[in-house]
Formats: sequence, structure tokens, C-alpha cells
Amino acid sequence: MDTGRLFFTSDYTRGAHPHILERMAQINMQQSSGYGLDPICESARDRIRKACHAPQAEVEFLVGGTQTNATVIDAFLRSYQGVIAARTGHISVHEAGAIEAGGHKVLTLPHHEGKLEAGEVREYLRDFEQDESRDHMVMPGMVYISQPTEYGTIYSRKELAELKKVCEDFGLALYADGARLAYALACPENDVSLADLAACCDAFYIGGTKCGALFGEAVVVPDPKRLPKFFTIIKQHGALLAKGWLLGIQFDELFRDDLYLSIGENAIRSADKIRKALTEKGCELAYNAPTNQIFAIMENGKLPALSEHIAFELWEKRDMTHSVVRFATDWASTDEEADRLISCLCL
Amino acid sequence: MDTGRLFFTSDYTRGAHPHILERMAQINMQQSSGYGLDPICESARDRIRKACHAPQAEVEFLVGGTQTNATVIDAFLRSYQGVIAARTGHISVHEAGAIEAGGHKVLTLPHHEGKLEAGEVREYLRDFEQDESRDHMVMPGMVYISQPTEYGTIYSRKELAELKKVCEDFGLALYADGARLAYALACPENDVSLADLAACCDAFYIGGTKCGALFGEAVVVPDPKRLPKFFTIIKQHGALLAKGWLLGIQFDELFRDDLYLSIGENAIRSADKIRKALTEKGCELAYNAPTNQIFAIMENGKLPALSEHIAFELWEKRDMTHSVVRFATDWASTDEEADRLISCLCL
Amino acid sequence: MDTGRLFFTSDYTRGAHPHILERMAQINMQQSSGYGLDPICESARDRIRKACHAPQAEVEFLVGGTQTNATVIDAFLRSYQGVIAARTGHISVHEAGAIEAGGHKVLTLPHHEGKLEAGEVREYLRDFEQDESRDHMVMPGMVYISQPTEYGTIYSRKELAELKKVCEDFGLALYADGARLAYALACPENDVSLADLAACCDAFYIGGTKCGALFGEAVVVPDPKRLPKFFTIIKQHGALLAKGWLLGIQFDELFRDDLYLSIGENAIRSADKIRKALTEKGCELAYNAPTNQIFAIMENGKLPALSEHIAFELWEKRDMTHSVVRFATDWASTDEEADRLISCLCL
Amino acid sequence: MDTGRLFFTSDYTRGAHPHILERMAQINMQQSSGYGLDPICESARDRIRKACHAPQAEVEFLVGGTQTNATVIDAFLRSYQGVIAARTGHISVHEAGAIEAGGHKVLTLPHHEGKLEAGEVREYLRDFEQDESRDHMVMPGMVYISQPTEYGTIYSRKELAELKKVCEDFGLALYADGARLAYALACPENDVSLADLAACCDAFYIGGTKCGALFGEAVVVPDPKRLPKFFTIIKQHGALLAKGWLLGIQFDELFRDDLYLSIGENAIRSADKIRKALTEKGCELAYNAPTNQIFAIMENGKLPALSEHIAFELWEKRDMTHSVVRFATDWASTDEEADRLISCLCL
Repeated sequence: MDTGRLFFTSDYTRGAHPHILERMAQINMQQSSGYGLDPICESARDRIRKACHAPQAEVEFLVGGTQTNATVIDAFLRSYQGVIAARTGHISVHEAGAIEAGGHKVLTLPHHEGKLEAGEVREYLRDFEQDESRDHMVMPGMVYISQPTEYGTIYSRKELAELKKVCEDFGLALYADGARLAYALACPENDVSLADLAACCDAFYIGGTKCGALFGEAVVVPDPKRLPKFFTIIKQHGALLAKGWLLGIQFDELFRDDLYLSIGENAIRSADKIRKALTEKGCELAYNAPTNQIFAIMENGKLPALSEHIAFELWEKRDMTHSVVRFATDWASTDEEADRLISCLCL
Repeated sequence: MDTGRLFFTSDYTRGAHPHILERMAQINMQQSSGYGLDPICESARDRIRKACHAPQAEVEFLVGGTQTNATVIDAFLRSYQGVIAARTGHISVHEAGAIEAGGHKVLTLPHHEGKLEAGEVREYLRDFEQDESRDHMVMPGMVYISQPTEYGTIYSRKELAELKKVCEDFGLALYADGARLAYALACPENDVSLADLAACCDAFYIGGTKCGALFGEAVVVPDPKRLPKFFTIIKQHGALLAKGWLLGIQFDELFRDDLYLSIGENAIRSADKIRKALTEKGCELAYNAPTNQIFAIMENGKLPALSEHIAFELWEKRDMTHSVVRFATDWASTDEEADRLISCLCL
Repeated sequence: MDTGRLFFTSDYTRGAHPHILERMAQINMQQSSGYGLDPICESARDRIRKACHAPQAEVEFLVGGTQTNATVIDAFLRSYQGVIAARTGHISVHEAGAIEAGGHKVLTLPHHEGKLEAGEVREYLRDFEQDESRDHMVMPGMVYISQPTEYGTIYSRKELAELKKVCEDFGLALYADGARLAYALACPENDVSLADLAACCDAFYIGGTKCGALFGEAVVVPDPKRLPKFFTIIKQHGALLAKGWLLGIQFDELFRDDLYLSIGENAIRSADKIRKALTEKGCELAYNAPTNQIFAIMENGKLPALSEHIAFELWEKRDMTHSVVRFATDWASTDEEADRLISCLCL
Repeated sequence: MDTGRLFFTSDYTRGAHPHILERMAQINMQQSSGYGLDPICESARDRIRKACHAPQAEVEFLVGGTQTNATVIDAFLRSYQGVIAARTGHISVHEAGAIEAGGHKVLTLPHHEGKLEAGEVREYLRDFEQDESRDHMVMPGMVYISQPTEYGTIYSRKELAELKKVCEDFGLALYADGARLAYALACPENDVSLADLAACCDAFYIGGTKCGALFGEAVVVPDPKRLPKFFTIIKQHGALLAKGWLLGIQFDELFRDDLYLSIGENAIRSADKIRKALTEKGCELAYNAPTNQIFAIMENGKLPALSEHIAFELWEKRDMTHSVVRFATDWASTDEEADRLISCLCL
């Protein structure tokens, strides 16, 4: 559809990894229990627990990212608490106020190419504790990060451990939004494993929608005692899929033989190729982003011609004559597609 | 899975109509715009508008029923308004407080086998208007009904028109939850068409999850001026599917050649067969329900044996020694399955 | 004002006990710390703790009843929990949805002249625990009662202890709305002391507005560990009075020499006198209410004449020709006023 | 109380203007209708309408500022809308998340000594309208300003008119928080009258608590058609005072003979005297604030000695060795108090 153009607008422009569709077709007419209480979900949970080295973890499957963030954050916070996020965090900007609709303030801090800096979080929390009027302010109850971030950057294991330390010192929960987690895991620069996330975070989610699943996100709560009644909270948020086994299939397949750990490799290879080509032709990259998103600084005048062939996202104004433009590759990106984009960029 | 037993627990125990899976497989690797802004969604919208004789209607696709109810109700109501529902309405009981989480009270009225009675709604609204302390009370802003109801009963065209009249007279919106709408439409006793719903309701949804779709519900708002910014409200509720075309496929197929109007016929035929058998063997039915749900009054002592062969739902206590038990058939139910249930019931 | 008529509409038609106004005048121009952090509030807290035999209790002062209910209930409940109340409870009807605006469902049970019956609460909770679909329902987290109730009736010490037992058995908080508490305490039929309330309830409030204060309600939380960050929750609800010492004055005076224990006596004496007169002249009382509210069943035809002299509240329709009418006395009611009402009733 | 020290911590450290206490004493035992439906409230409303040249305005009385902001903002906004405020706005920081608890995001913009700049608001709104992903973002529905601001600065009539123009152009409501409005009105630099506020704002409130009243804020909605059911919204927010006439008295007295227009003069004279003394002794003022708040940059080392004699507020860190300290004068400040502060500052 929209046949003239190649889509680099996002990483959710295609369906699912073929194994998933096959499995869905195979059991389509079998009857199953609803709400995630079926054997396929159980199998998927076990595979995820194993991959995360988190044998006790509660694993729940939700449909989409905004829903997942709103549900998890609401589950952790008390009514008087808010969630710390980078000014650029997905929950700060692009979730239409879903967190506030649940009654919680998003407490924004400056970002560093999309990342929070542990030292700044610590300073914020220390200032809060020392502020005479803190009882008149929203109490921070959680730190939200994305791995990779909305700017395609990744936290290092050291940075993650520092954030964990800050959260522990001040009694906050640490939560990682892994909507694009497969693209961090497939990235050579990355040294944060699923087990590291499970060791550092009170909760995180493993993104399916953007990483080879038809749809779905897997929430991992390493210590399930942290979230009593999580099932009911999911239901209250309208986030409980009746045919839960559909979500089970996504993750049972994505974690069969650890497919998830490598499924992002195509995307990284394509993105690297595009980044290299852009740099070689003198185009500046806006952020030091090693994952599947490419942020190129381009002349506004060249964009109309480009958009005849390529669908991309206008990220932000850079100056009067330049914009930052985003291209996203995905698990199914091909060399051919990357080459076609490169040739269009060189026009 | 769970292989010994036949499931009559609900109407969402299986996947999707084969046409849907085929279409999904067919376009799986094509790239598409997200959030329902793609041509398949457009086609599905057009088919629904046509089937509803509502050429101007806004049609939006959401994933599940609780989510849809919470989103639509929140979209219509102002902060000081509540929604009238039967005490047995799905939103009154089984949505974990999703409506209240959005800040709105569910104002419950007595039910008549799951239905609201227009005269009682009118009396309630008249009393409200005459109550000296009404400004200290939640103002009713909407009437919520289900077609068919949670008790398997259906509103007649006359009853629906009466409810519409009451709502008009008092300035309320009328909203119909059609989670199982296909089973009303396929029911010989039913005289309410999709066009009737569009003519009487300010909004209703056409259930997919329980009626042949993999998942998905189609909200129809005959006069879209009623709901400005509905897209953003959907997003805020975490109810905007990134890969919106997946929902488009469900309804594009369900409304191709008006499949939806007949897809419930299997379920009705099976249910009638089961009801007839139950009655013949002297088992009393709890409600006068002509759709795909069968509510049988059974001796508690016989339930353990039955449940070895059949998965069903314990609906409610009837008296000290009897319970109401629910069996649900669905679009894919077979004569064979009905016969097997009947033979188990006759043990 | 409105000079022809005598007001029996409510118990908040007058200002404050003279001692309170005097104290306010006396310190009017002194400077004080805000938000209840001043010595007068501390003194009032101590007096209340002593009167309640609850030396560790947290005591906080809020301005009005609806505000207090919404704040306390929100402070105790988690997002997935609701509050059980009698169908006639103030929070169920006359608080304009303040509880739901905070995201919590009011789970209503039948009332017995305004009271919850412990056995019915127990049965409700037992059914909830046994319901297969309970995880799809709002989990009860608190029981709300009023002492005296909206129908002027009072819980006995035995009934209160039974409710406490039920709450303990099921892990719920017990909360008593004491908007009119002084009128229970001054009532000869009453055997529930402040110490009993402190021993049985997780929280209750001592009503000031209707009981001799200019305004204000004192929340008592016998075990303050139950409510971390209650101050911030109060602020978030817009319920933190800047000049907190004004509330401190109300309760410091009301609890000086245990004035609060006897301040309702005028009201009870007047109400008894009126009830006796009504009964003698053959007028039926609607409820067995021994406190400061009188619910008389009167012929509709006689009401217009009565209302020329007396302002009262039309409580509810009784039948086609009769209504229940409410007269409320208060701490400042005089024999003269009672006599005047009686003489009007005898017209 | 706290007798050694003089309070410059805030402008709500004292009771009420003597006229108010007298009036309260005078009618203390008279009976009155509740909820603001009494003749004194009516008189106060009329006086305010007259002072604002807004004969049609709806005027409602609430108890405190946070409560007022939460109620008014919630009344104007739809569920998908947020409110624009300066990063330093009271609602952005010091209301414990009251706005978010109502489901609305506070959209913060940079401040200029506490003020929003109309050009920046326009740019923000224009960018919003042009952003491709705006439907995934919170839609701005209102602009919130404070007059004077939290930094003691004031909007000029020109600046106010520019903000009004921006709001009109983009269909937003303009709302002014006048918690300290008397101190703007009494300030020689000020050219914004009550009538200007009524002409430019969709709503504003006239602060009582900090400006001579015992407590209370008067919300003025020049066009009452903008806010249907405002009374119920107030009740839902727990902001409806039962004895509404108490609030009526505050404003009936404050607007008798236009007392409110001059009641802030003491505060301004004292503040000017203090500012002059500080400047003369070489102390830098942090902001160009002409109203009743003085923001002095002081050496940290000198603060302990000062705080032995003077209670003040530590506003913010300036650098490693200096802090911004706030002194607030009020309607009852005396020359003697100012002199005493000045002599302490000169130690």
C-alpha cells in the first residue's frame, strides 16, 4: 500500500515474524482459556524468566506501549507520587497525558541525548528532601527511563547501575521502557543484558510491537511482591486482552531459541550502513545513536524531493534552514531497502 | 490445549475467522502507516458506515471491550457527569472500576433480565431533576446498555426507541455496548438492525473479539461532531493500536459481503439446540435469553461430574442447592460440540 | 435574614460557639505559622488524643465533610480498591461523585435505617473472595459508616465491634464519618464513646461544622503509620487550610473541658420534645432516629402552610399523598424554637 | 505565639481585617441558608460584579487557592486538555499535583521573573498546531497566569492584552490566579484594574486569604455560560463550604467602599521601605518585584543570625555561598515591623 514509497517512518510498519503468524494459524481453531491463564502464556513467561535470569519474576503481557507505561506506573505509585523522566521521555510528551489521566505528575529532568544522568537525578532528589516546601510538592516515587531512548541512545551497564543506586538510596522504583529493546540488545555498543535489566529495575518491559511481534509488550517485575493485584490493575486500565494467548504466542516465539536477542540485527546493520553513507556524503548526524534510529540534519529545501520516494519523520527544527529527520529501520529491513534510501539521499 | 474438555466458558476461546488470518498473512510484510490511518482501515470504515446506513459516522477501532467502554464514556461525559447502567451492566461490575478510574460514577438502576426499562430511566431522571439536592449529586450524562445484554437478552426496536426518546428528552447520550452484537443480529427474535442502532444511539460498538475477529471493537459515532479530539482521547486511554491496520483487517473482512450479519448463526443454532435439550430433560433456564448464552439452573451436586468434560462458567447461586450455570456458544460452534455438551448434560 | 421563618433545614445554619469567636478575635492580629504547624493546633491535637484515649493518633484538621471523606478515603485506598458504604451513605449520594473523581468506586450495600449490617458486609466480602471473576472487579478496601447516620440512627458499641471484626478478618480499613458526632455523644441511647471509635476505626472524623464550630472537621488516625504522607495528600486534595490555626482554635475550644461531649445536648432535648409532640398528635416518625434529626411522615397537603413559618427539608416521597420531612435541631437550638415548631405542626 | 520573632514568612500569618471579625460576631447566632445561597453572598457578588464592571459575571466563593485552581481548571478543561503555566507557576510546583490528580497535565513554559511571555505562548501553540504528532500530545486548553506572580512581578495591561489575544487566536481560556491580587492593585507600577482582568480573562480569582480576609477566594467568571454546572464541580472538588455566608462576609466587607483596592497599601509601603534599605546597604534584589514580596540575595553565613529575630523563607540557592531569601509583608504590616526587619538586616 502507498506503493511508490519506502517507509522509514517507524519500526512498526510491518506485521510479525513469520514464526508467529504460523503459530497463530496453527492453533487458530483450538479453544483456550482467556486473560493470559493458558499454557502458551505460561511457556512464554518461563522463557522470559530464563532469558532474564529472574526465576521469580512476574511476567504480564499487554498490548501496547502507552498502555503498558500507564498501567505499570500507576501500579507502582501512590496517589501522592510522581514519576521522574527525561524531558524527552515518551511519557513526557507523546502519550497524550495518559500518566496524568491516572493522577500522576511526570517530573521532567534535562536529557542528554535522551538519557537521564544519575548525578542529576541524585541532585534533584537531594534538593527535594531538603526543600522546606517538599510536603507541598509531588513526591518522586519512580524513575522512568527508555532503553534505547527516544533518541536512539543506550544506557551503559555502569549508567544503569548508577541509576539503580540512586533509586535505592532514595527509595524509588526504577522502570525501563523497552519498546525497542531488541535494537539495544542487537547493538555492538550495548553492554546491558536482559539479566542486567532484571537485576537493576523494579520493572521493565520487553517490547514486542516494534521488535518482530504483531503487537504486545511483556512486563517483567523481578520481585512480584512489589505489585499486589497487578492483574486487576491491568484490567482497570482496559489493558487485559481477552484472548491472552495471542500475546503468549508472540513472546513464546520471540523467546524460542533466544530469537529476541538477535532479531534486531538486520535493523542495526541497515542503520549503520545508512549512517555511514550519510556521514560520507557530509551529512551531520544529530545524536550519537547506535541503534535502529538515524537522526540526520538535513536542509529543509531537500526534503520535498526526498519525501517523494521515502516516508520519514520530521523530528524537529534545527535552525532556520535545517531540520532533524528521523529514519527508522526494523527487524525486517533489507540491504536493498537501505541501498534505496541511500541512493535517494544522494540525489 | 486442556484437551480433555470442551469449552463453553465464553465466546472468546478461539482465534479468528479464516479470512482474517489469510488477509493478515497476505500483507504481513507490506509496510503500512500506523494508528489506523491506512487504506485498509479506511475500507473497513466505509463498509461499516454502509452497513449502518450512517454515511457520516466516525468509526474508530479499539482492541477490547473494557477499554472501549472506558474510552467512549470518558469522551462523552463532562467531569461532573455519570453514566446510567443496569446493575448487571458490564461496566457496573466486571471492569475493575475502569469507569470510576476515569472519574465517573456508574449510576445503577434495576435490571430486567439484564435490560434497563425506559420508564424507570425516565422516572429516575425526572426525580433527579426535581430533587432539591441534585446539584450535590452526580448528574446523569449518558445511558449505557448492552445489546445483547450480559444475560443474553435483547432490546427490541421499540424498547430501543423508547430509551432514545428518554435520552433526548433529558439531554443524555445513549451508548450501546455491542460486544456480542453479532449474536443479536443472527437471532430470529431480534428486530434491531445496525441501522437502527445508528439511528438511536449517540455511539455504539460492534464487537469483534467475541464475534469472529482475532480481537477488536469498532466504535461507531453517527454524528462525529459529538466527539471532538476522539483520536487523542483514545491515545490517552492507551487504546490506540500502533499497527492499526490489524484492526482494519478484522472489520474489513467481517463486513465484506456483510459476513458480520450472519457470522453468529452457528452460535444461535447451537444454543437453541442446547436450550431445547435442557428444557426437554426438565432443566429450567434462568432467563429468557435467545442469543448465544445459555443460563441453566442446575443442581450443585451434578456440577463436578459435568466439569470433567465441559468447561463452563458458574454464574450465580440460585438457592442452597442450585446454581445458575452459563454455557456460551460462538461463531465457530459445531453441531458436534452441541451434541457432546447435551450428552454430558444427560448423564 | 429570611426573617419570618425559623430554620430547621440543617444543623449548619448558625456560626460558632461563642468561645470560638472570642478566641479568634483575641489572637486575630498575632502572627502564626501556617498549615496547622502552630501551637494552637498542637494543643487541640493533644486534647483530642486525650479525649479519644489515643495518645499516638495523628490528628489533622480539614475544612468540610465532603473534602474530608474524599481525602481520607483516597489516602487509604490503592488505585484498584473501592469503599463499601450503605446505599444511603453521604459518599454514595450527596458528594457529587467526589470519591469517583478520585478514581474509587463506592460499593453500595443495603441500609437498615442508614446503617450497614455487619453480617451483610461479611457475606459480601465472602462472596467476593469466592467469586471466580473477582480479579475483574473492584476490590473492597474500606468500609465507610456514619455515626450518627444520614437517617439519624446510631451504631451501638456491639455493632461497631462487629464491623471492626469483619474488617479485620478481611483486611479492610474501617472509617467513620462523624459529621454529626456530637449528637450521637449527647444521645442517651448511645453507648459508643470517642475511645470506642478510636479503638475500632482505622480513621474517623469528629465533625465541627455541624457541632458548634464555625467550620472544620478533625480527622483522627489512631495508628499514624497507616497513612504516610497524609499531609501531602491533604494538600493535593486542596484541603490544606493556609491559616491552619483557625481550625486549631475550633477544636481547641470544643475540646476544652470536654465541651464537645455535651455540646449536642440542647439539640437532643429539642429533638426529643419535637418527636414527642409529633407522636402525641398522631404523626408517624419514619425512622427510629434518636439524635438531632426528626423524620416525620406528613401529608403533602399540609406542607405549604407549614413552610410559611418553618424552613425544613423535603426528605423523600413516602406514598402518593405523604412525604418524609426532615427537621434538624442543633447545639444552639432553644426550647422556644422547639415550641414554635410544635405549635406550627399543630396548626 | 513564637514570640521572639517577627514573621515575614508569608502574607497569611494573621487573621482578618477587623470589619470582618465584627460582622461575623454580629450575625453569629442568626440562621442562614447554606452553600452560598444567602443574602450576604448575594450582596458580596453584586459588589464584586460592580468593582469588576462585569454585571453578568458568575461569582463563586471558595476557601483556598489550591482548591480554587484545581476546581476552576478542571471546570474549563476537557479530559484531553492541559493547562499552560510558567515553570514557576504555583500549579506547576507547590500544589502537590492537584491539577494532575484531576487528570490534567501542566504544560510548562519558561518564565520571565515569574511571567509568561505572550510571544512564547504563541510560538508554543503554533508549533503544537504544526506538529505532526500533536494528536498524541496533550492539547493546550487554558493559559494560567498569576497576578502578581510567585516572584512578585506584575503583568502590565499591555502584556495581559497580548496574552488574551493569543488565547483568542488559538481558542484557549485565560485564567488568572489572584491569590495576592490586592498587592498588585495597591502597587503604583500596576496598570491592570479589576475591570481589565474581567475584560481579558475567562476566569480569575480575587484572593482573600492573603489580602485581609480570614480565608476565601472569589472566583469571577465574566461570561457564566462558559461554566455550566460550576456549583456541582465545586461540590465534587470538596470545595463547597456548608456555611457559605462566612465567605460572603469576607468579600462583602472587602468590597464595601472598595476597601480591597487599597487594603494592600500598607504592604507595598513596607516592602518598598525594606527594598530601599536593602539596596542602600548593597544587598542585591533577585527580581524586579514591586509588590509585597522582597527577594534578597544574601550570604548564607548571615542567615542563622538573622533567623533568630526574623522568620523568613529560604527561596532558592543562588550560588555556593548565597541564597535568595523571601520576605513578605501584608495588609497589616506596620512601619515598626519594617524598621525592625531593616535593623536586623543591618546587623
